[in-house]
Amino acid sequence: MKLFNKVAIIGTGLIGGSIGLAIKRKRLAKEIVGFSRRKKNLLLAVKRGAINRGSGKLDIVRDADLVILATPVNSIINLAPRIANIIRKDCIVTDVGSTKSKIVSCLVKIFPNYVGSHPLAGSQKSSIVNANPDIFKDSICILTPVRNTNSNTLNKMNLFWRQLGASTILLTPSTHDKILSFVSHLPHVVAFSLMGVIPCKYLKFASAGLKDTTRIAASDSQAWADILLSNQKNILKTIGLLQSSLARMKLTVTRQDRDALIKILKQAKLRRNILK
Amino acid sequence: MKLFNKVAIIGTGLIGGSIGLAIKRKRLAKEIVGFSRRKKNLLLAVKRGAINRGSGKLDIVRDADLVILATPVNSIINLAPRIANIIRKDCIVTDVGSTKSKIVSCLVKIFPNYVGSHPLAGSQKSSIVNANPDIFKDSICILTPVRNTNSNTLNKMNLFWRQLGASTILLTPSTHDKILSFVSHLPHVVAFSLMGVIPCKYLKFASAGLKDTTRIAASDSQAWADILLSNQKNILKTIGLLQSSLARMKLTVTRQDRDALIKILKQAKLRRNILK
Repeated sequence: MKLFNKVAIIGTGLIGGSIGLAIKRKRLAKEIVGFSRRKKNLLLAVKRGAINRGSGKLDIVRDADLVILATPVNSIINLAPRIANIIRKDCIVTDVGSTKSKIVSCLVKIFPNYVGSHPLAGSQKSSIVNANPDIFKDSICILTPVRNTNSNTLNKMNLFWRQLGASTILLTPSTHDKILSFVSHLPHVVAFSLMGVIPCKYLKFASAGLKDTTRIAASDSQAWADILLSNQKNILKTIGLLQSSLARMKLTVTRQDRDALIKILKQAKLRRNILK
Repeated sequence: MKLFNKVAIIGTGLIGGSIGLAIKRKRLAKEIVGFSRRKKNLLLAVKRGAINRGSGKLDIVRDADLVILATPVNSIINLAPRIANIIRKDCIVTDVGSTKSKIVSCLVKIFPNYVGSHPLAGSQKSSIVNANPDIFKDSICILTPVRNTNSNTLNKMNLFWRQLGASTILLTPSTHDKILSFVSHLPHVVAFSLMGVIPCKYLKFASAGLKDTTRIAASDSQAWADILLSNQKNILKTIGLLQSSLARMKLTVTRQDRDALIKILKQAKLRRNILK
């Protein structure tokens, strides 16, 4: 089903590249073009079939009817005004940034047909090398329309993500940022912090538990700095909650209060079992 | 290679059961017997071939030439004096407890031929149902001899674990507990705490990152309460280090100090890449 004539993917990394591959597989567009500052990246994206052609100049977005911003948060905000100067008024624009309040409040003023997206897919791996059209299958994609979001734009993007295999959920940007600060940003903070405190000389004793717990600490540093900084209020709150939780744990250990400690561990186990 | 005539496994759960299966596969003993308070557990252990016969009475350890204590930490300490009354003087004894200082200081006084072991194998899963002789393959088993450990006991247990596929490392009980508080106990504390702060209603938004980070939060609550309480000093210290690390992260986010934050995330990524 052709949804678009020309899709422009800004940032042909893991997510951008995977979207390109999925669009091609589902034949959702006549043409897919890509923008990246890194020539090697574009060559690989073309070679892998994620885009038909690429450029290091934004002019490649001209005449697109869908633009997908798939760069780190700060870059999305920086590139948006320049893209607005090139595209047609009726071009639909979305982004796949991991935080939404800052991006949406900015982009909604720039693009008349914009809606924010956040596909909950991806991993600690980055780059086009790891792109995979299947990462959206059975995933959740959050769409973050606001009061003046064009209903045609919302409907078309909703359909687009469903065609890629995702279930879609509509949330306000601020609810999105609150939820993600718990289920994604805090786990990343924890993984980064944990790796920071374990002395290197002890790493050879790591078993599967430590490896799993810290897998996402290998995520891209610059992208994650942007995510954490752009969701400041929520991040500070969730880190605070974790600090309190650690303090409670410490108290039970200090007091050798086995019953209280077991209660905490049992609650954690029960909740974890929901995630299965 | 027969190393023992009769091996008695006290606690036929995940680790005890896996040891039984591995002994049988490697033909390291003529007979393997098991002790468990739960009859169902023993029946399953026999059915799975982890033990030849089992009993809910400790008398089953009589005439064993190797006793392996594979129950939670507190239980190991409680059962030891009763076992000492039954076994022969020349019987070798080991345990597989996850903390060593408390256990070793206690058991070394009770058994003349004792050395502590800690196979760094296992997972969040417990019970004989998940027992698997392969979990020791390519794993590390830490042995914790002390000044008066009989060299024959140490050599034989060293050989035993190597026959099960593990590499062995000798550490003092206190060094063991210090290292494990970083590479195993702290990640568990973090996983438990993280699950404790995420509201249940948000769990449906969990992606692979959260799932991996908290996998070990599903570990057995009572066993882990014992582990944390028996390694009090080290646990309190490592939780303290993590709290400081989280505080530093908060500070960079509060100050919007992107460079400092990226530095922290990059260091975490570099260390995590060592773990591969």
